Amino acid sequence: MIYVVGLGPGKKDQMTKRALDTLDKCDVIIGYKAYIDLIKDCYDDKKELVSSPMKGETSRCHMALERALNGDTVAIVSSGDPGVYGMAGIMLEIAQGKTEVEIVPGMTAACTAAAILGAPLMHDFAIISLSDLLTPWELIEKRLTLAGEADFIVCLYNPASHGRPDHLRKAVEILLQSKSPETPAGWVKNAGRDGEEYGVTTLDKIADEPINMFTTVIIGNSTTKIQNGKMLTPRGYKI
Amino acid sequence: MIYVVGLGPGKKDQMTKRALDTLDKCDVIIGYKAYIDLIKDCYDDKKELVSSPMKGETSRCHMALERALNGDTVAIVSSGDPGVYGMAGIMLEIAQGKTEVEIVPGMTAACTAAAILGAPLMHDFAIISLSDLLTPWELIEKRLTLAGEADFIVCLYNPASHGRPDHLRKAVEILLQSKSPETPAGWVKNAGRDGEEYGVTTLDKIADEPINMFTTVIIGNSTTKIQNGKMLTPRGYKI
Repeated sequence: MIYVVGLGPGKKDQMTKRALDTLDKCDVIIGYKAYIDLIKDCYDDKKELVSSPMKGETSRCHMALERALNGDTVAIVSSGDPGVYGMAGIMLEIAQGKTEVEIVPGMTAACTAAAILGAPLMHDFAIISLSDLLTPWELIEKRLTLAGEADFIVCLYNPASHGRPDHLRKAVEILLQSKSPETPAGWVKNAGRDGEEYGVTTLDKIADEPINMFTTVIIGNSTTKIQNGKMLTPRGYKI
Repeated sequence: MIYVVGLGPGKKDQMTKRALDTLDKCDVIIGYKAYIDLIKDCYDDKKELVSSPMKGETSRCHMALERALNGDTVAIVSSGDPGVYGMAGIMLEIAQGKTEVEIVPGMTAACTAAAILGAPLMHDFAIISLSDLLTPWELIEKRLTLAGEADFIVCLYNPASHGRPDHLRKAVEILLQSKSPETPAGWVKNAGRDGEEYGVTTLDKIADEPINMFTTVIIGNSTTKIQNGKMLTPRGYKI
């Protein structure tokens, strides 16, 4: 049996009780080192914890499958929700029905960041990753263009990294074709973790903010406003 | 002080510890009757619980503000994540900075439903509500059209109700202009609650499934497949 467990933003109090209970009953917990570090204070002496390096996604899943087929109850952990750009899919692909796989969802970065920024996601929205490691950049540009035309609120995952410092600036240029430069835009770095920072600005200035790979960016729709320093997309109620 | 607290799908074990701890420290918990019912077993004797009728969103927030200005620590609860089509926005609008408002996010239906259906949300996706109570239907149609053209995975909230039994069928017709009829499509009713049901089918057949207002629908992108009865959108890893 394999559980793919979402840790949420990282601190134990932002995990669900279901996720905590699931980890409790597993024989071994496997994850990228940074994620194992997030939970090791809870389990270090009692549990077998297996850290694996970044980009070791497939080997982690093969290891989990092997352990499960040997009779262990196994958890694969990742931050946020494993069902959103996470480990859920690759684990199901590798397991191929040879063992049961249960996905235990966690708080995804869009929701964690939105709560910090105010209430930007009160209406239809799109989540787009700016990482072109596994996706052609042309497809990312097309999705940005159409999301802008649809007046979606847009939440950007992986807005920047050392390998692609200009992706956010390019994304902003595309969104400016359909969204006003004054559209409220916010960012949250290390959401829900130590070192949390955030800022609220406008679309034309968001690319100048201190945004890195641990940041989530949310850009409003045509009705989003800034009120008391928070982003707020009205749902449409008469108040 | 007002906390807007997400209950997630409804059962206590799918709330975060942060949400549970927040409710514990509040003097009064205000919510739509069905949501208060979900938590009343945890608190009935110890807490003041205030149920309010459906569509009473604004009066609930005015009541919360009044209580907070009188010195109480107040929680407004809603299912899922109050930051996604939820109470976070209207509470901030009504509070207007007169008291501190903190949003405590919960698991939103997209993530809860995705985990039950497999791993459909492994790539860029759009969340669209089919409710036209507060949104012109023409705008919903435009967003569906562009989301289809962008090859987003599409997650539909409020896919049906008594007042709008044909909305899902119309949405499917629009998505079929850009998505294959064979595109995997799944639905989850009462996700994470008593009476949970789900099904996996294809886009051309999804409108024939037993879908009501307590259902979330997820329609894949051009790479989504069905494997061992689960929806799976590959992220692009070589396995």
